[in-house]
Amino acid sequence: MKPFDFYNPTRIIFGNGTFARLGAETAKYGKKALLVKAQGPLEKMGVYSRAAKLLADAGVRVLSLEGVSANPKLSSVREGIKLCQQNKLEVVVAVGGGSAIDCAKAIAVGAVDEGDVWDFFTGKRAAGKALPIGAVSTLAATGAEMSLHCVITNEAEKKKYATHFEVNYPRFSIIDPELHKSVPRFLTACGLCDTITHAGENYFIGDRNTPMTDRIAEGVILTVLENDRVLEEPENLELRANHAWAAAIGINGLTDCGRGAFYYGAHTIEHAVSAHFDVAHGAGLAVVHPAWLAYLCEQDPARFAHFAERIFGIKGKSAREAGLAGIAALKAKYADWGLPVTLKELKVPTDQATFEKIAADCLVDPDSGIKDQKIVLDVLGRCR
Amino acid sequence: MKPFDFYNPTRIIFGNGTFARLGAETAKYGKKALLVKAQGPLEKMGVYSRAAKLLADAGVRVLSLEGVSANPKLSSVREGIKLCQQNKLEVVVAVGGGSAIDCAKAIAVGAVDEGDVWDFFTGKRAAGKALPIGAVSTLAATGAEMSLHCVITNEAEKKKYATHFEVNYPRFSIIDPELHKSVPRFLTACGLCDTITHAGENYFIGDRNTPMTDRIAEGVILTVLENDRVLEEPENLELRANHAWAAAIGINGLTDCGRGAFYYGAHTIEHAVSAHFDVAHGAGLAVVHPAWLAYLCEQDPARFAHFAERIFGIKGKSAREAGLAGIAALKAKYADWGLPVTLKELKVPTDQATFEKIAADCLVDPDSGIKDQKIVLDVLGRCR
Repeated sequence: MKPFDFYNPTRIIFGNGTFARLGAETAKYGKKALLVKAQGPLEKMGVYSRAAKLLADAGVRVLSLEGVSANPKLSSVREGIKLCQQNKLEVVVAVGGGSAIDCAKAIAVGAVDEGDVWDFFTGKRAAGKALPIGAVSTLAATGAEMSLHCVITNEAEKKKYATHFEVNYPRFSIIDPELHKSVPRFLTACGLCDTITHAGENYFIGDRNTPMTDRIAEGVILTVLENDRVLEEPENLELRANHAWAAAIGINGLTDCGRGAFYYGAHTIEHAVSAHFDVAHGAGLAVVHPAWLAYLCEQDPARFAHFAERIFGIKGKSAREAGLAGIAALKAKYADWGLPVTLKELKVPTDQATFEKIAADCLVDPDSGIKDQKIVLDVLGRCR
Repeated sequence: MKPFDFYNPTRIIFGNGTFARLGAETAKYGKKALLVKAQGPLEKMGVYSRAAKLLADAGVRVLSLEGVSANPKLSSVREGIKLCQQNKLEVVVAVGGGSAIDCAKAIAVGAVDEGDVWDFFTGKRAAGKALPIGAVSTLAATGAEMSLHCVITNEAEKKKYATHFEVNYPRFSIIDPELHKSVPRFLTACGLCDTITHAGENYFIGDRNTPMTDRIAEGVILTVLENDRVLEEPENLELRANHAWAAAIGINGLTDCGRGAFYYGAHTIEHAVSAHFDVAHGAGLAVVHPAWLAYLCEQDPARFAHFAERIFGIKGKSAREAGLAGIAALKAKYADWGLPVTLKELKVPTDQATFEKIAADCLVDPDSGIKDQKIVLDVLGRCR
């Protein structure tokens, strides 16, 4: 086990009906809030009007940032920062999925800074302060509600980069499964895939002697697989809850402890793909992650045999054979769930020029652990 | 899954050599510290002189509280509070096992309070503030380094009670496996048992549909069982590390999420036993925990069958049969490790009068979930 720091101060408020606590929790951190709203059906479902009433009842005045898109854009971040600075807002509250929460995180950092917020994403500067952040997670997927990670797309430069600042841990996150039950099937499947990918990224790199960390990562993946019936029973709040808690645990830091390595290879490649082609993150991962694993399996088949046995009960003749069978089983799950598993299905071109553009982007991503263009080309070739 | 709050802001600094960070981490919280020292071989091993030098080098002035015993005593707490108040100390640093850390937690609460610190343990008052606490964990066992729990023995009244205040989360805890390698075999075995018990207490009560939480609890237990070779290889730092991280995860709140129940039945009975007979906590648990589980198994055999299969791969003819086989396997492990598994081995009397005294104590423990004396008598009967 390699040395590590683990620190995660987010207060998780979990359970049916906990949305009602939004006002009281927010008021602990400020009386003037920016409410960051995701695009999509939440407005129609009355979620935002409930949020506004809960905040008002707790004496919190609210300005809103409307229409934050999937793959949240730098322009939304800049707009939110302006609202905070001009109105001296004290707390940023996101209501939505990972996109709204990530947008709130970037705004929270930018609002107390004089410079350009994109500097934080290109690695020019680190953030040591931020406005306090609260979140209401309406979709189990990115785990942004319990992580310090923040991913923003610079739409002008077609770059999708991440930051990892401790000040970006939400002070509180409400995970109320009742808010998840209207998530459409495709987005639910994307969330299942995203959760598995988070737990499965660092699992395959770094130190191997990490039994406690492995068990948590495997627990996340097994919980997702054992609750995928949520696709057929979208209003089953128990299944929603089980996925939601796995999604939060899957990227709250616990699945990385002791590995001595931190980079999300499949995410790096998916970010480069979706920066250009604006695909749903979870759908992009369903294509890229199994291909990335197949590449890694060639480097360390024993690790994949371990994975295949723990997750799918597969024991093969050789480690490589068992490992590849495990990856195939994962990919088959994604296809079963109705997710694309090839770039063609994702409507992403598969010509060499596109691949080279994506590979070049991966190498300049300041967050990337991939150091050789050939690796990306190899992986993309497996995605065709 | 039942609603829950999860909040754990302790910064864990984990790995060989991380002890060196004690000074810099402490200095973030104050320049005048109380150093809480456990009884035992740490002084001889030079751990305290290293701690003192690390703190001095970081500009932290130190007063020491010496000789905190296992089952830390209220008199030590009172002495520490006096030192803090008279010298306006700003931060409390524990170096030792769970006893030193628990003592530091009680001191931290009492030092900023005008009243009697024992009131917090009898449930008369709740603590909303405390001095900041730092910890160096020298023994993997109680998980005090990453929990809000604090157990103190009132030696005059022969009561051993617990508090659970958020202000008692250590600000930071250093878990340096190098400091664990001299822990004697018996205490190491006690720590293995304590870790399993923590993960296994609430596992058997409350809501059953908690798959993510179950996987973490099972992961803790499996990690301990798969690394018990540490008893034969005490200087194997990988085994020490694996146990140490499992010990912290086992009681940091994650193994309780969604159960909607929180009480530690085996701990309640063990606390009453050790308040009278001052037995090592882990040894007391090795006797009481399997008996407590056998009692619970009669109420809900299906849950125990699930446990037996996940942990020991046992599948039985009936749930009860499989469940009892799982409990027997656990008890056999404890015996293998050289721990006592009966009250006789523990040198605790087994007459009716003693049992009734222990049972009466359990019922008045403000932290107890056991509401009927008969239950305690049933469990103690199984410990003979």
